Amino acid sequence: MQIHLLNPNTCQAMTLQMAEAAKAVALPSTVILPREPEHGPLSIECARDEVIASAALLDEIQKAETLAVDAHIIACFGDPGLDAAREIASVPVIGIAEAAFHLATLVSYRFAVVTTMKRTIATAEHLLGRYGFEQQCSGIYASDLAVLDLEQLSGEHYELLLSDCRRALAEGAEAIVLGCAGMAYLAGELSGTLGVPVIDGVCAAVKLAESLSQLGLSIAKSGQYGAPYPKLFKGRYQHWSQR
Amino acid sequence: MQIHLLNPNTCQAMTLQMAEAAKAVALPSTVILPREPEHGPLSIECARDEVIASAALLDEIQKAETLAVDAHIIACFGDPGLDAAREIASVPVIGIAEAAFHLATLVSYRFAVVTTMKRTIATAEHLLGRYGFEQQCSGIYASDLAVLDLEQLSGEHYELLLSDCRRALAEGAEAIVLGCAGMAYLAGELSGTLGVPVIDGVCAAVKLAESLSQLGLSIAKSGQYGAPYPKLFKGRYQHWSQR
Amino acid sequence: MQIHLLNPNTCQAMTLQMAEAAKAVALPSTVILPREPEHGPLSIECARDEVIASAALLDEIQKAETLAVDAHIIACFGDPGLDAAREIASVPVIGIAEAAFHLATLVSYRFAVVTTMKRTIATAEHLLGRYGFEQQCSGIYASDLAVLDLEQLSGEHYELLLSDCRRALAEGAEAIVLGCAGMAYLAGELSGTLGVPVIDGVCAAVKLAESLSQLGLSIAKSGQYGAPYPKLFKGRYQHWSQR
Amino acid sequence: MQIHLLNPNTCQAMTLQMAEAAKAVALPSTVILPREPEHGPLSIECARDEVIASAALLDEIQKAETLAVDAHIIACFGDPGLDAAREIASVPVIGIAEAAFHLATLVSYRFAVVTTMKRTIATAEHLLGRYGFEQQCSGIYASDLAVLDLEQLSGEHYELLLSDCRRALAEGAEAIVLGCAGMAYLAGELSGTLGVPVIDGVCAAVKLAESLSQLGLSIAKSGQYGAPYPKLFKGRYQHWSQR
Amino acid sequence: MQIHLLNPNTCQAMTLQMAEAAKAVALPSTVILPREPEHGPLSIECARDEVIASAALLDEIQKAETLAVDAHIIACFGDPGLDAAREIASVPVIGIAEAAFHLATLVSYRFAVVTTMKRTIATAEHLLGRYGFEQQCSGIYASDLAVLDLEQLSGEHYELLLSDCRRALAEGAEAIVLGCAGMAYLAGELSGTLGVPVIDGVCAAVKLAESLSQLGLSIAKSGQYGAPYPKLFKGRYQHWSQR
Amino acid sequence: MQIHLLNPNTCQAMTLQMAEAAKAVALPSTVILPREPEHGPLSIECARDEVIASAALLDEIQKAETLAVDAHIIACFGDPGLDAAREIASVPVIGIAEAAFHLATLVSYRFAVVTTMKRTIATAEHLLGRYGFEQQCSGIYASDLAVLDLEQLSGEHYELLLSDCRRALAEGAEAIVLGCAGMAYLAGELSGTLGVPVIDGVCAAVKLAESLSQLGLSIAKSGQYGAPYPKLFKGRYQHWSQR
Repeated sequence: MQIHLLNPNTCQAMTLQMAEAAKAVALPSTVILPREPEHGPLSIECARDEVIASAALLDEIQKAETLAVDAHIIACFGDPGLDAAREIASVPVIGIAEAAFHLATLVSYRFAVVTTMKRTIATAEHLLGRYGFEQQCSGIYASDLAVLDLEQLSGEHYELLLSDCRRALAEGAEAIVLGCAGMAYLAGELSGTLGVPVIDGVCAAVKLAESLSQLGLSIAKSGQYGAPYPKLFKGRYQHWSQR
Repeated sequence: MQIHLLNPNTCQAMTLQMAEAAKAVALPSTVILPREPEHGPLSIECARDEVIASAALLDEIQKAETLAVDAHIIACFGDPGLDAAREIASVPVIGIAEAAFHLATLVSYRFAVVTTMKRTIATAEHLLGRYGFEQQCSGIYASDLAVLDLEQLSGEHYELLLSDCRRALAEGAEAIVLGCAGMAYLAGELSGTLGVPVIDGVCAAVKLAESLSQLGLSIAKSGQYGAPYPKLFKGRYQHWSQR
Repeated sequence: MQIHLLNPNTCQAMTLQMAEAAKAVALPSTVILPREPEHGPLSIECARDEVIASAALLDEIQKAETLAVDAHIIACFGDPGLDAAREIASVPVIGIAEAAFHLATLVSYRFAVVTTMKRTIATAEHLLGRYGFEQQCSGIYASDLAVLDLEQLSGEHYELLLSDCRRALAEGAEAIVLGCAGMAYLAGELSGTLGVPVIDGVCAAVKLAESLSQLGLSIAKSGQYGAPYPKLFKGRYQHWSQR
Repeated sequence: MQIHLLNPNTCQAMTLQMAEAAKAVALPSTVILPREPEHGPLSIECARDEVIASAALLDEIQKAETLAVDAHIIACFGDPGLDAAREIASVPVIGIAEAAFHLATLVSYRFAVVTTMKRTIATAEHLLGRYGFEQQCSGIYASDLAVLDLEQLSGEHYELLLSDCRRALAEGAEAIVLGCAGMAYLAGELSGTLGVPVIDGVCAAVKLAESLSQLGLSIAKSGQYGAPYPKLFKGRYQHWSQR
Repeated sequence: MQIHLLNPNTCQAMTLQMAEAAKAVALPSTVILPREPEHGPLSIECARDEVIASAALLDEIQKAETLAVDAHIIACFGDPGLDAAREIASVPVIGIAEAAFHLATLVSYRFAVVTTMKRTIATAEHLLGRYGFEQQCSGIYASDLAVLDLEQLSGEHYELLLSDCRRALAEGAEAIVLGCAGMAYLAGELSGTLGVPVIDGVCAAVKLAESLSQLGLSIAKSGQYGAPYPKLFKGRYQHWSQR
Repeated sequence: MQIHLLNPNTCQAMTLQMAEAAKAVALPSTVILPREPEHGPLSIECARDEVIASAALLDEIQKAETLAVDAHIIACFGDPGLDAAREIASVPVIGIAEAAFHLATLVSYRFAVVTTMKRTIATAEHLLGRYGFEQQCSGIYASDLAVLDLEQLSGEHYELLLSDCRRALAEGAEAIVLGCAGMAYLAGELSGTLGVPVIDGVCAAVKLAESLSQLGLSIAKSGQYGAPYPKLFKGRYQHWSQR
C-alpha cells in the first residue's frame, strides 16, 4: 500500500526525519510518500500557524488523491485540518495525535503527553476532549522548546524533555505520548531510558493505516465526511472552485 | 467606535445584507466596517470551506488592525478562525455563534438552533461544547437550505425555516438562535410570527462589541491569545513571515 | 431605558456604591433605579442569607414591574432568586455572576473568580456548572474578607485581594472576574495594576441589559419562565396570593 | 428518636397525609413531629413558590432545633432550602428527593421520576445533576396534575399517574420514584399494580434518618454546613439577626 | 430480618471482625449471617483478586438465597460482582462502597475516601463514576497498607491512617469514608479523634438493608437485574448449568 | 508473532469460527493461537456469565504466558477481565470492544453498535464510558438474538441484524461496530450490502496487536497493570496462591 505522510509544517528537513521513522516501522510492502505543503509556516506553534497550515495541507491531500494513495497521515500533533481532509479524501485520513492516543490507551492505564510550546497545551486538551481521552490522560507537559529545536536536539534540550517525562511518570503516568511529529525519532531512546512505553504518533499512524487497509476498512463517505459541495472560490483558492 | 464586521464568506451581497442588520442595531456613534475576504469560498457549508475561509479571513483581521478598529466580528455561525484571529488582534474578536448563545441564555431557559445544511450540525454541536452551552440548547434543526438561498429567500424556503422553528418550540425550545449570518435580516419577522425571542448572532455581536468597548474591556494578550511567534512562511502565505 | 438595579443585600451604602459604578458605564439615555429589599440580611455570605434574600428580593421585582422598568439586575454574585424573578418579570432579569462570566469568556481563554468568603466558593462552583462555564474558569480564590469590609476597603484588605488576583494569574488565569457586587468600584484600579481584563458583574449586567433592549429581545415567557400559578399564600407572604 | 417532618407547603391536610405515611414505616421508638410553615404558599409548583417556601421553612428548622429533634426531613420533592437548613441545624437534614434517589439506585438499574407539574421537570433535572444521579434516571414524567389534586385523587387523575408510570416502564425504567410528597400514600398501591419498586421520598427519608441516628452519624459542621455568620437582618426577617 | 453479610475475602478473621461491627448497629430483630466464600483470595487488592473473588462470591449468594435471607451485603469496598449478584438474588444486594457513599452525601458537602493499597484508587474512582458521586468526593487517599494489616492494626499503621484522614480534611473533606471493609471497627475511634463523620460501609449497608426491608422495597427484577438465562457451564462452574 | 486469541465463551465452535476470521486478516508471519477456557459458560449474555468467564479466562492468560505469546486478545464484546488479564500478562492484552471502537472512530464521525441481547446494552454503555467513546457512538441496537444463534445464522436472524444496521444508519450512524465476537464472519457481507464500514472487533484486535508488536510497544507494568501481589488463594483457586 501507499501511505501519504503529510507533514503540515513546510520544513522539509522535518519531513525527511519523520519519513525515516515511518519507514522503519512500515511493512516491507508499504510505500511511504513523504510530503509537506508548498505553502505555509515552517513550523506550527500557535492557532494562526495551525489555521494557515490547515488550508495549505488540503492542496496536498487533493494532489495525493490523484496518485491513488491508500491512506493519508496528517503528521502534526494538532491533527490540523483533519475533518476537512476527510471530506476531500476517498481513503482513510489519520491524525498523529489520535493515532498516539489510541495506542497509548491499549498499553497503559494513564498516559501523559510531553510536548513543545506551552501554548499548544490548549490544542492537546481540545483534542483529548474531542476524541474522548480526557480521563486516560494524566497530564500535558510542555517544556517550551521550539518545534524546530527538535530537529537537531542539543543535549540540554534533550534533558529538558527527559525531565518532563520523569515528572509525568512521578505524577501518575504509565506511558508517554510524544506531542510533536518532530519527536518521532526520539521514541526508542526515551523508552529505553525511561523503561515505559513511549508512543510516537507518526509511527502509530503508519501502523493504523496499514491495519485499516488490511481490514478493507475505508472512510465512511455517507455523512459528515461526504465530498464537499461544489462552489465558487475566489482569489488564491479559486482552484477549489467547482470541485 | 469602529467595528470590523468580517463576513468570512466571499459573497459581497451577503456582507451588505448583514451590514444593514448590524447598522440597524448599532449605536449612532458606532461605525460598522463591513468586509469579506479577497480569497476563499463564496459560502461556508462544510469543513473544507471553513478551513480555507479561516486562513483567508486572518488577512482581513490583520488589515483591519492597521485601521485601528475597536473590535472584530467574525460573521459566520461556525466562528471560523476565532482563536487565530484573537492571537493577531489587539482588540476583542467576537464570533456570531458565541454572541447569539450568550444572549439566548439570558432570555430563555432552553434555546434551539435553526440552521441551514445538515452537515453544519456537527459544527454547532462542537461550538456548544466548546463554549459550555450544551445543556441550554434543546436541539439543532437543519432544513438543508443552501447558505446562498438565504439572500433572496423564496416563500417556500421561508416556510421551511418557519416549520423548523415551530418544531423546535414544540420540542422544548423557548427561544430560537439563527444558525447562519445570512439569516440576520429574518430575526424580526420570525420573532413577530412566532412570539418568542429570535436571536441573530450578527446583531448580538455588535451589541457585545459595544458593551466591551464601553466597559474598557479588551482582549487578554498575556496567555493563549498572545501574539503569534514570528517565523518563516512559504509560498502564498509568505506575507505572514516575521510577523 | 430604565434598569432596576436590585442589590439583594439590605445594606444601602452598598447599593449606592454599585449604583455609582453602574451609572458610570450606562448610556446617557439609561436610567438606573437602584434599590435594595426592605427585608433581609445586611449582607449575603452563606446559604441561609441567600435563601432569605431571595424571598425578599421578589417583592422588589414585583414592585419594579409596576414602574415599567425595562430590565432587572440582581446584583449579588450568587444570582439569588434568578429563576423565580424571571417568572415574575415581564422583562429580562440578569444576574451579575452570569453577566460577568459571559463577558469574561469573550476576552480571555481562562478566567478566575476572586471572591470574599471561602464558603461562597461552593455557590460560584454551582453557578459555573449551571451556566456551563466550568471549563473556562481556571479557579476560584477566596480571601475570607467579609462582604461589608469591601465598602471601605483598608489597605491591608486591598492587598489581600490583589494577592489573590496575582496568584490566579500565576496559576493560569488571563482575566479576573470579581466575585462580589461590593467590588464593582475596584475593577478599574485592579485592571490598571494587573494589566489584565478585570470584569465586574454589575457593570457587565448593565451593558447586557442595554444590549437586549436595543435588540428588542425580551424574556421568553412561554415555558420555564412563564408567570407563576395563582394560589394562596399564608402569613407574611399573603400578598403573593392570587397573583 | 424524634424526626421533624417538615412539609414546606403550608397545606396542613397534606402534612397530615404524609405524616401518616411516615408513621407507618417508622420504628416504634421513632416519634414523627409533622409541621408546616406558618408562612408561605399552599403548594409549591414553580420557582417563586420554592424560593418563598425555602425562606419560610428555615423558621421551622430553627424552632425544631430548640425541641432537640434528632433529624429534619424537608418533605417537598424539590428539596427546597436544603443547604440553608443544614447550616442552621445541628442534626442531619434530609430532602425527600435525595432520599428517594438514593434508595431507588439500590434496587434498580434505572429509575424514572413521575411527578406533577411539567414546570417542575427542570427542578428534578437540577437535583439529579446536583446529587449525581443523571445516568441512573431514565426519564422524568409529568402529568400536569396540581399538587393539591393529589390529596383527594380522583379516579381520572389516578389513571393519569398510572399511565405515566406505565410509559416510564415501557421506556426503560425498572422502578418509579414519586416526584411529590403528596404522592406518599400512593406508593403501596402503585407498586402492587405495577409490580415494580415504587419509592416515596417521605418514607425513604424517615428510614435514612433512623439509619444515620443508629449509626451515630450527624451532620458535618466543619465546612460548608457550618453555622451561619451572625449579622443584622431587616424587616420581617429581623428575628434572624445576631443568630 | 436476616442479612447475609458476605465478605468476599476468604479471610475468616476479617469476616468475624466485620460481623461484630455489623451486629453492633443492627436492630435487635435483625439477624446477621456472616459468610465468606470457600474459594478465592485471602484479601482483595488488585483486579485479579477482584475478578476471582467476584466469581467465587456468586456461589455464596446462590446458597444464601436458599436460606431465605432478606438482603445480601457484599462487604468489600470494590463492590465486586454486584451486578451479577443482583441477577441471582431475589432480594436487595448492597455493596458497602455504594452504601458508604450514599450516607456520606447525606451528612457532608464533600467527603474523602481513605483506603489501603494505592492500586485500589482506580477501583474507587471507577465506583464514584458509576454511582455518580464524583463531584461529592474531594479525594481518595491510600496509605499502601495491606488489607490484612488492618485486622490487628499496629500503632504505626493506625497513625498512617489517621494522617491520611487529617490530610483529607485539610484539603477540603468534611467527612471520611473508610475504603475497606477491614476498617469497619475503626469508624468510632477515628470519628472521636477527628471530630467529623466517619462512615464505614459495612454498618451503612446494614442500615440500608433494614431500611429497604421495612419499606417493603425489593430488587427490580424486570430488567437489567432479571434472572440469568439458563445455559451450560463447563468444568468447575458446571453447577451453574441450567440455572 | 504469536497472538493468543482467547474466546471467553467455552463454545469451541465459536472459537474456530472467530479464529478463521482472525487468520484471514493476520499477516503471514502472525500465528493465531485460538483458545477457550476449560471452565465457564458456553456463552456470555448477562453479568453472571461475564463474572464467571472473567475468572476462568485468567487461567488461560496465565497458561499462554508460558507459551511466550506476543499478545492476548480477549474475544468477547464485553472485554471481560481485561484489567485483571493485564496484571497477569507481560505483553499487550486487547479487548475486542475497545479494538472495534478505536478503528471505528478512525473511519467515521459517528458509529453504532449492533449487538445481540438487549441486556448487554448496559455493558456496551459502560465500555463506551470507560474508553471515552460515548460521543462518537450514535446508538446501541440489540435484536435479542442469542449469542449461539450467530454460529449458524438463519436467514430470518440475518434479516434481523440487517434491519438493526439499517435503522442505525437511518438514525445517524455512518459505520457499524459488530457487538459480538460471534459476528466476526459477517463483517464483509454486511459491509458489502450496506455500503458502509462494518467493524468486527476480533479482526480489529489482531491488527492492533500486530501494530503494537511492530512498534515495539508492550504493556506498561509500572502502575495499575503491575503484577498482582502474591497471596494465598483457597479452594478451586489455590493454583493462584503465591503467584
